[in-house]
Amino acid sequence: MLPADFISRLQAIVGRDNLFTDPVDCYAYAYDNSRKIFPPEAVAFALNTQQVRDVIQLCNQCAVPVTPRGRGTGTAGGSIPECGGLVLSLERMRNIILVDPANRLIVAEPGVLNQEIQEAAKQHGFFWPPDPSSSAYCSIGGNLATCAAGPHAVKYGVTRDHVLGLKAVTGNGEIIKTGCATTKGVVGYDLTRLIIGSEGTLAVITEATLKLTPLPQSVGGITAHYADITHCARAITAIMAQPHIPSALEFLDSAALDLIRGRHPGLLPENSRAMLMIEADGGTAEIADSAEAIRRACQNDGLITAEATADPAGLWAVRKALSPLLRDIAPKKINEDIVVPVSRLPELLQGLGELSRKYRVANVNFGHAGNGNIHVNLLINPDDPDEMRRGEACLDEVFDLVLKLGGTLSGEHGVGREKRAYVGREIDAQTMALMKQIKQVFDPNGILNPGKLFP
Amino acid sequence: MLPADFISRLQAIVGRDNLFTDPVDCYAYAYDNSRKIFPPEAVAFALNTQQVRDVIQLCNQCAVPVTPRGRGTGTAGGSIPECGGLVLSLERMRNIILVDPANRLIVAEPGVLNQEIQEAAKQHGFFWPPDPSSSAYCSIGGNLATCAAGPHAVKYGVTRDHVLGLKAVTGNGEIIKTGCATTKGVVGYDLTRLIIGSEGTLAVITEATLKLTPLPQSVGGITAHYADITHCARAITAIMAQPHIPSALEFLDSAALDLIRGRHPGLLPENSRAMLMIEADGGTAEIADSAEAIRRACQNDGLITAEATADPAGLWAVRKALSPLLRDIAPKKINEDIVVPVSRLPELLQGLGELSRKYRVANVNFGHAGNGNIHVNLLINPDDPDEMRRGEACLDEVFDLVLKLGGTLSGEHGVGREKRAYVGREIDAQTMALMKQIKQVFDPNGILNPGKLFP
Ligand SMILES: Cc1cc2nc3c(=O)[nH]c(=O)nc-3n(C[C@H](O)[C@H](O)[C@H](O)COP(=O)(O)OP(=O)(O)OC[C@H]3O[C@@H](n4cnc5c(N)ncnc54)[C@H](O)[C@@H]3O)c2cc1C
Ligand SMILES: Cc1cc2nc3c(=O)[nH]c(=O)nc-3n(C[C@H](O)[C@H](O)[C@H](O)COP(=O)(O)OP(=O)(O)OC[C@H]3O[C@@H](n4cnc5c(N)ncnc54)[C@H](O)[C@@H]3O)c2cc1C
Repeated sequence: MLPADFISRLQAIVGRDNLFTDPVDCYAYAYDNSRKIFPPEAVAFALNTQQVRDVIQLCNQCAVPVTPRGRGTGTAGGSIPECGGLVLSLERMRNIILVDPANRLIVAEPGVLNQEIQEAAKQHGFFWPPDPSSSAYCSIGGNLATCAAGPHAVKYGVTRDHVLGLKAVTGNGEIIKTGCATTKGVVGYDLTRLIIGSEGTLAVITEATLKLTPLPQSVGGITAHYADITHCARAITAIMAQPHIPSALEFLDSAALDLIRGRHPGLLPENSRAMLMIEADGGTAEIADSAEAIRRACQNDGLITAEATADPAGLWAVRKALSPLLRDIAPKKINEDIVVPVSRLPELLQGLGELSRKYRVANVNFGHAGNGNIHVNLLINPDDPDEMRRGEACLDEVFDLVLKLGGTLSGEHGVGREKRAYVGREIDAQTMALMKQIKQVFDPNGILNPGKLFP
Repeated sequence: MLPADFISRLQAIVGRDNLFTDPVDCYAYAYDNSRKIFPPEAVAFALNTQQVRDVIQLCNQCAVPVTPRGRGTGTAGGSIPECGGLVLSLERMRNIILVDPANRLIVAEPGVLNQEIQEAAKQHGFFWPPDPSSSAYCSIGGNLATCAAGPHAVKYGVTRDHVLGLKAVTGNGEIIKTGCATTKGVVGYDLTRLIIGSEGTLAVITEATLKLTPLPQSVGGITAHYADITHCARAITAIMAQPHIPSALEFLDSAALDLIRGRHPGLLPENSRAMLMIEADGGTAEIADSAEAIRRACQNDGLITAEATADPAGLWAVRKALSPLLRDIAPKKINEDIVVPVSRLPELLQGLGELSRKYRVANVNFGHAGNGNIHVNLLINPDDPDEMRRGEACLDEVFDLVLKLGGTLSGEHGVGREKRAYVGREIDAQTMALMKQIKQVFDPNGILNPGKLFP
């Protein structure tokens, strides 16, 4: 359905080597980790900001939808070209433009992988705090567009806390520069954070100035096991109510533990029904202090054991393997990343158990408990239409529960196309209308990632 | 110039006791710390969100400009009703709605003073990091609208890093709710940070959910004196290039030291021409580590002495007294808060010295050196038109220098009306046009704080 001269004009911008039109090639750009499939009619790889601008202007002129894409690891379907048209891949904009340890910043193109940023920073004693588990294969453009985070967000915050400025091209094809190169700056509106988390619906990020943080001197780990989920949830609340902020506080429920037991027999105590993986970082003395305080907060009647972890790296590897393990046993699982205030976690986890029983849908829950951010996985068999229906009804009630507890529908994965039907439950009509008007300002013809984020 | 029935309709909304129309009463709302004077025709004190909405809707209907005001301590003229009309004061919305230590947050109305938030948080072992020197008499509404900060921003960040969500009324008179109650959340656009720092031009903030941080266990201080400004600037760069982030890193130049000497004889070494006030916080061992590392970074040929401060509180009192001291000697001083990347501070400080000599305008420089944020004070005599002219020409070149060094025109005070003429040098035309369109979305009739922030 592309207009007659669209492809030739596109090729004039990006060159023959940076263009796919063969459906076989395009197919690899039809899906992301949401596993829905909508093939684009073409894929263009931009190499610089000017090309991005020219491509977007062309798409405006030809009324062709354009979907920005990093590495397609998103779980909300944000990079899927649902309306067809063009996928604009940023994956070939891979230059780290500046590493500036004196000013604690890195300037990079959007296609640089998260891990590449970490490696560049590490050489100077720094890191970039956003640490999604997909670090090795997701792009910083995707991290920014989704406001990604990971286990260390409990201490270090999320992507929006670690960006100084952006270069971007609006849906209208205009190059803008937001923010500044310094850690303070209040001139003009904060377009930087408006674009962060906007999931490629306002502008295509073509350059980012990332704020670096000094690497902690050392890291210590504690593993705590509980006889039941309620006592574990209470411990989470107690840990977060005392002043020593853990650098990570990850929770795994009994179903998650059983999955790990299947793969790593003997690794976990048999009677553990809920586990916390806790990390503290800083100077040696500081870690000792924190570990002591955190271990005290771990204590309650349901505690089985809370011990220093001999091999924290090994434990993280196990935690990281959970998502793929789940995929293996339930390829069509419904995967959510809801958040509630930490003090409401006991109610949330209890409620999730009740909903699982009510709808007869197995679920596996784990996640970033220190932020109240739980990955809820409903394991459903796609070939069983009744189970599918029950799964969806269950999800519906999960969202209601989350909102009733004062939470939010997504902590890090975003809305994309997967959650847009539910957004209206969280955001009221007036606020939503305002957001749509802002979308209209950036993208008056509605060609940039159409259909995403809004109901 | 107010329409005939405006005052009676306004009174019907806020009540007789919450309305000033007598010019004498109104006069107190004609100025802020920029010392420019534009009296409003009326002042209304809103008591809740609904009243704010009704007032703004009335102003829209009657085409009356409305200027939101906290406590009028701003230095950029943001709260001055330059176009006349109504001042909408939030100072009587003073309830702290919720103190929730388990979830590390406080929900408060905009008129609550910064210091009141600190006191409420302190009882539970927390603080709210934004710490302007005006803490005792500025409102959190003003802090949010300006994205205020203070000495501790070097470690803890600025206002935008410590807010979870807002309730606000747009210039169009619509109530919106932004953000969420949790530390993670990515549903919808980040309107929270769009409103933070928008200086009352987009929406009136009527409630804020503030994120709390645990109070440090203890605090240590180091005072370092240098024989000249160049060596001092080099030390700042060295301190920020090593991994121990000071919790404050304040700089005072020789003119600032002379001012203090005048008031506190004997307090400072005679040969000191530049001083650093450094703070490190954390556990006792951590502070010892940091202090050691920072003291090492302080060393260079120009160092006179770098010693632990016996009385950190006393030193901060001296530092806080600087602004008022300056007002005494130069009531019409031009007061800027420029920022440059930390590594460019030596060039900035040298350049400021050269410009002072070139234009024969005395200046006093001090500020938040760890963020590269320097308060430049040009001391000019208002009764000397030639000196005024030289002062303005000098300022012009100061801004050019700042931008040449990759900096920004304002680190914390904002643009307001004082700096709007210069904004176009920092923000390019396309980005500025986009900002104006966003303003148009929030405030289609242009009645909310008209004339501010834009050139
Ligand atoms: C195994 C696994 C583990 C994961 N763990 C985490 C985790 O711990 N935390 C977490 O937050 N996420 C996690 N994710 C999700 C995903 O990796 C992140 O959302 C990541 O930030 C996406 O990056 P990407 O480059 O793959 O972006 P894509 O999937 O290609 O795109 C994501 C969104 O960003 C937009 N976009 C991409 N690049 C740009 C750009 N340059 N300009 C404008 N918009 C753009 C797209 O249009 C889309 O809406 C995980 C995913 C997997 C598969
Ligand atoms: C002695 C002194 C020291 C200072 N030190 C610092 C410092 O260290 N760091 C720093 O950042 N600032 C400092 N300031 C500046 C000032 O105190 C801050 O900008 C403060 O945040 C302003 O708060 P306020 O309540 O007085 O706001 P106001 O001056 O009343 O208003 C400031 C701006 O915010 C808008 N506004 C106010 N309330 C609202 C609301 N509820 N909704 C929407 N818009 C609103 C106004 O329209 C205006 O544009 C200092 C000022 C003085 C006098």
